[in-house]
Amino acid sequence: MIRMGVIGYGYWGPNIVRNFNALDEVKVTAVCDKNQKTLQSINKIYPDIKICTNSTEVTDARDIDVVAVVTPVSSHYEFAKRALEHGKHVFVEKPFTANAAQAEELIEIAGKNHLKIMVDHTFLFTGAVKKMKELIDQNVLGDIYYYDSTRVNLGLFQHDVNVIWDLAPHDFSIMCYLLKDKPVSISACGKSHVYEYENIAYITVHFASTIIAHFNVNWLSPVKIRNTLIGGEKKMLVWDDISPDEKIKIYDKGIDVKNREGIYDLLVSYRTGDVWVPKVDQTEALKLEAKYFIDCIKNDKVPFNDGHAGLQVVKMLEACNESLKKEGQAVAIRE
Amino acid sequence: MIRMGVIGYGYWGPNIVRNFNALDEVKVTAVCDKNQKTLQSINKIYPDIKICTNSTEVTDARDIDVVAVVTPVSSHYEFAKRALEHGKHVFVEKPFTANAAQAEELIEIAGKNHLKIMVDHTFLFTGAVKKMKELIDQNVLGDIYYYDSTRVNLGLFQHDVNVIWDLAPHDFSIMCYLLKDKPVSISACGKSHVYEYENIAYITVHFASTIIAHFNVNWLSPVKIRNTLIGGEKKMLVWDDISPDEKIKIYDKGIDVKNREGIYDLLVSYRTGDVWVPKVDQTEALKLEAKYFIDCIKNDKVPFNDGHAGLQVVKMLEACNESLKKEGQAVAIRE
Amino acid sequence: MIRMGVIGYGYWGPNIVRNFNALDEVKVTAVCDKNQKTLQSINKIYPDIKICTNSTEVTDARDIDVVAVVTPVSSHYEFAKRALEHGKHVFVEKPFTANAAQAEELIEIAGKNHLKIMVDHTFLFTGAVKKMKELIDQNVLGDIYYYDSTRVNLGLFQHDVNVIWDLAPHDFSIMCYLLKDKPVSISACGKSHVYEYENIAYITVHFASTIIAHFNVNWLSPVKIRNTLIGGEKKMLVWDDISPDEKIKIYDKGIDVKNREGIYDLLVSYRTGDVWVPKVDQTEALKLEAKYFIDCIKNDKVPFNDGHAGLQVVKMLEACNESLKKEGQAVAIRE
Amino acid sequence: MIRMGVIGYGYWGPNIVRNFNALDEVKVTAVCDKNQKTLQSINKIYPDIKICTNSTEVTDARDIDVVAVVTPVSSHYEFAKRALEHGKHVFVEKPFTANAAQAEELIEIAGKNHLKIMVDHTFLFTGAVKKMKELIDQNVLGDIYYYDSTRVNLGLFQHDVNVIWDLAPHDFSIMCYLLKDKPVSISACGKSHVYEYENIAYITVHFASTIIAHFNVNWLSPVKIRNTLIGGEKKMLVWDDISPDEKIKIYDKGIDVKNREGIYDLLVSYRTGDVWVPKVDQTEALKLEAKYFIDCIKNDKVPFNDGHAGLQVVKMLEACNESLKKEGQAVAIRE
Repeated sequence: MIRMGVIGYGYWGPNIVRNFNALDEVKVTAVCDKNQKTLQSINKIYPDIKICTNSTEVTDARDIDVVAVVTPVSSHYEFAKRALEHGKHVFVEKPFTANAAQAEELIEIAGKNHLKIMVDHTFLFTGAVKKMKELIDQNVLGDIYYYDSTRVNLGLFQHDVNVIWDLAPHDFSIMCYLLKDKPVSISACGKSHVYEYENIAYITVHFASTIIAHFNVNWLSPVKIRNTLIGGEKKMLVWDDISPDEKIKIYDKGIDVKNREGIYDLLVSYRTGDVWVPKVDQTEALKLEAKYFIDCIKNDKVPFNDGHAGLQVVKMLEACNESLKKEGQAVAIRE
Repeated sequence: MIRMGVIGYGYWGPNIVRNFNALDEVKVTAVCDKNQKTLQSINKIYPDIKICTNSTEVTDARDIDVVAVVTPVSSHYEFAKRALEHGKHVFVEKPFTANAAQAEELIEIAGKNHLKIMVDHTFLFTGAVKKMKELIDQNVLGDIYYYDSTRVNLGLFQHDVNVIWDLAPHDFSIMCYLLKDKPVSISACGKSHVYEYENIAYITVHFASTIIAHFNVNWLSPVKIRNTLIGGEKKMLVWDDISPDEKIKIYDKGIDVKNREGIYDLLVSYRTGDVWVPKVDQTEALKLEAKYFIDCIKNDKVPFNDGHAGLQVVKMLEACNESLKKEGQAVAIRE
Repeated sequence: MIRMGVIGYGYWGPNIVRNFNALDEVKVTAVCDKNQKTLQSINKIYPDIKICTNSTEVTDARDIDVVAVVTPVSSHYEFAKRALEHGKHVFVEKPFTANAAQAEELIEIAGKNHLKIMVDHTFLFTGAVKKMKELIDQNVLGDIYYYDSTRVNLGLFQHDVNVIWDLAPHDFSIMCYLLKDKPVSISACGKSHVYEYENIAYITVHFASTIIAHFNVNWLSPVKIRNTLIGGEKKMLVWDDISPDEKIKIYDKGIDVKNREGIYDLLVSYRTGDVWVPKVDQTEALKLEAKYFIDCIKNDKVPFNDGHAGLQVVKMLEACNESLKKEGQAVAIRE
Repeated sequence: MIRMGVIGYGYWGPNIVRNFNALDEVKVTAVCDKNQKTLQSINKIYPDIKICTNSTEVTDARDIDVVAVVTPVSSHYEFAKRALEHGKHVFVEKPFTANAAQAEELIEIAGKNHLKIMVDHTFLFTGAVKKMKELIDQNVLGDIYYYDSTRVNLGLFQHDVNVIWDLAPHDFSIMCYLLKDKPVSISACGKSHVYEYENIAYITVHFASTIIAHFNVNWLSPVKIRNTLIGGEKKMLVWDDISPDEKIKIYDKGIDVKNREGIYDLLVSYRTGDVWVPKVDQTEALKLEAKYFIDCIKNDKVPFNDGHAGLQVVKMLEACNESLKKEGQAVAIRE
């Protein structure tokens, strides 16, 4: 039995506790949160879980094997470091850390102590993302032309980070998972209307290849949109994560350039064929992710969403912030 | 009776001829096009219209009062200039000209000769744009936070300009018409996958105020999207131009910042109320625009979509092209 | 503290237990089900609830005040009767009983013993139905012309009743709640493709007035549709229960007959105005219903969804079955 | 060159003239209508067409080979009969005639005189219906379980027939074209709210097999719906004729009954797989139909949408009217 402690029981914490606790080989034994009322609500459902307000009761506990850090990003480094130093595997909410240096340090500590880090890029465990990964790996789309994501809705405003740090980690982690090419630099523009952090932003990611990627993130949209277009040479794909039944659509659409002798002889022909809506697995992603983390620990495997995957996303977020200050000027993503 | 000559009878030309010719006080008397087969198709429907392949037969003709230039942008300047010099009012397809200098010269010539220029920003005459103008002028939305437009579909690839010059003139002209604030600079990123001109681009427009505007244009999208979100302090609006019946939706949504004593006390409250779908006029926009141009000529009024409006759009397109070369670096829009 | 026992813990039972148990003044103390494995799953979540397989341990228990009967319809009468005879209030799943005689007997027993019956017409507690009730009561729609409901999806096949008895109770109870006019007779047609009970059916309900109502119920539809159109003289309404954000739309649409002198002078003019999407309460309906039942018990009020409301639905279901056998011939609903 | 005369130039007449006239081997030479203003509008577009108000100038003319009857149904018989008696092929608007006896007489006259009758069941020439025909003929859906059509919108009220005679001919002709089984009897219920003819109706069609078909037609709906579900043993299909790009969707959905030993052992398993959206031909249906009619005349072929196809629809309409009077009682369709 793997014993787990959880730090932070706000919006996402209850899902972490519920999904890990449901695994046969896991028992969530302690939850830490600053809010007493929140802690009491835990015991209504899970009378056996120890509740506490001091995080060291989790990070330092002898009878805990894994610590989940489900707090605002600013405290990830502190809690994860202490847990690693006390010999615990860590499961850290996204984004991994507040800067790349912190992430690198945590990776190093974990390495030295033979401990696992998993960064909670939950979307990588959804049926939709797994299906897209499968399609792209099988070269169904052909060479990728572009990746264009829109993730907008009303709220929830974060108090300590801008909308990019809140929403883009989802999309950055998905894109990096799906595409083989590595992003090189980033141009980002944004604006804050409510308080000091940007609540709306537009991010373009440049590659060494001809791929271009774009991310539209907005906390002030009247409608909720979760839409990603992936254009390929052979096929094109739309992922609408709001659709209950038709999340992924594959379009047999494209163009062929037939003649290139002079501008006026350019002959572009358009191809429009059938649309295919593959069935996607509907299992709760966090359930699969929790199970996968436990498997990685038990079988000493490196999770694909490990500290390095988390670090890559943090480097992209840092480049965004720098470009924001320069009104969209391209900023290289740190190697 | 106002006599009109038309240069160019490709994709849009037939609509120009049909709508102007339908007006009581107008007669289209001549159409010029390079393609003989195209010209013959005209006479099947309009046996009385004179057809020709030499544009001077239109620009220089004594019995023509107005010339419509419906050709690729590279020839707008030449044809419009000659028509103006021969004393004709001109109706010019968007974008007005291939660069700002050309536009300024045409405006000057028209001014000297007391002639009208109208740039065909057709969308300004749609029921949807008129309704949005009315709502914004009445301050229904309150202070504007952002303007976010997506205009993507498969093709039609233009041979001589990039996707920005093809699609963004619609959105730039609409935004400039709707918003009182003037755009200051532009950050644009794009990529060409098919031939030398960009077929996908992302444009951010900066203002002196806190407004931010963004334009997503793409010739390689498997789906057709014509979606604009306008976020205001009091209300938010979505314009979906594809929807047959519900083009404009007004959302009584927004946020209020209740408490600003320190980050952790930031209290954002979310407001979600009714949605209102106002009826919009369904009259064909080009019909209204044609009628308006003739009214301006007859009553010596300056059209709001005149040469200066066209020039403003061209200046923005020029800034886009410059920023594209600089990978998104902000470029000032010329005064 | 009101003590509740629940008989039946299949598809819907867990929701009953969760919602009643969450109320401050209620404690679910016992749950009965035939399936041992099901019962064990209860104690994982609610260690304190007594589990049993014999229903009399619930119906006859001294320390239980209210019994919820959440079993297939064939056993409602037996369990509810025994519970009432042992002095318990009863909350009965829809449809109330397998025939009208059973319902009448239960109503009589409850009346004699001063006990409450509530039939679980959950939809009457949704924000959408409450909003429609409000609009119709305020005469926003004017005289009602028709009520047209489609409730189709794939499965879940019931083993002991046809699709009408499974799905139509929702719609019958909603319609009877919303409209003042009483239905008079029913024409129903259906077909069974899988086993002896109809899996698809079309029901027309006739009124003394000019209202006509129709219900399309189908267990074999590839798509899930939950759509109701209500046409009124002044306004028309569409209720799309699948839509997350726009469940109710009010259309300012209609016709006016201007001239009635002879058929060829009939002048029908069409009115098309704005659409209005009122915000609806998103609270879980069963939570509100549970609270309302407890309030009725504590304050000795007659619930509007009482035994008589349940009986009316059963009478309509009986008329459906009779009409089905007569291939659509109209059958009077019993008084 | 085949010379065509057209009687009736109301809502649909202009489309008839435009499409037939566009064929190389056809010339529309005369159009008859009661309304002088309507006739004048013809000559603005087609200066050569002879206009007249007396139908005999079309039916009796020596220089006309084909007569299209595009008038209200009450006059179809009279005009078509006279045209046939004067040796002309006839193209008749749907529904074919006002009763079955008239249709039978026209078929007989045409037969004697070796003339063609085509009834304008335009939908049979749409890409969507052709694709469905292909799929069903290839047994992609397996045995058909049901055919469920909804065709509702606001207006246009017809002055001389009820909503069934106006809208259901489309659906009856499509269903008869797609399904091999013959309909046997009909149950129909409807209501009139505006004047004497029903403006809303629900029609169930019974078959000797286990197929059931249903048609929901309504002139008083605030929304336009054109939706048909076809459930088969192997696959299910949805035809949404409003959708611009995804008119036909094939669902790999269904159920399997695994065990039938007693009711409680009934095990229904649900199958949910991919969705497939085949590309459908977008050519204007009336263009294809016009071409097909001319081909039938030139090559002496019997059109599949001939008088007998039209008669079958009229018989079904007659059964509807009789069932309406009997409040839904099933009425046999005449052999």
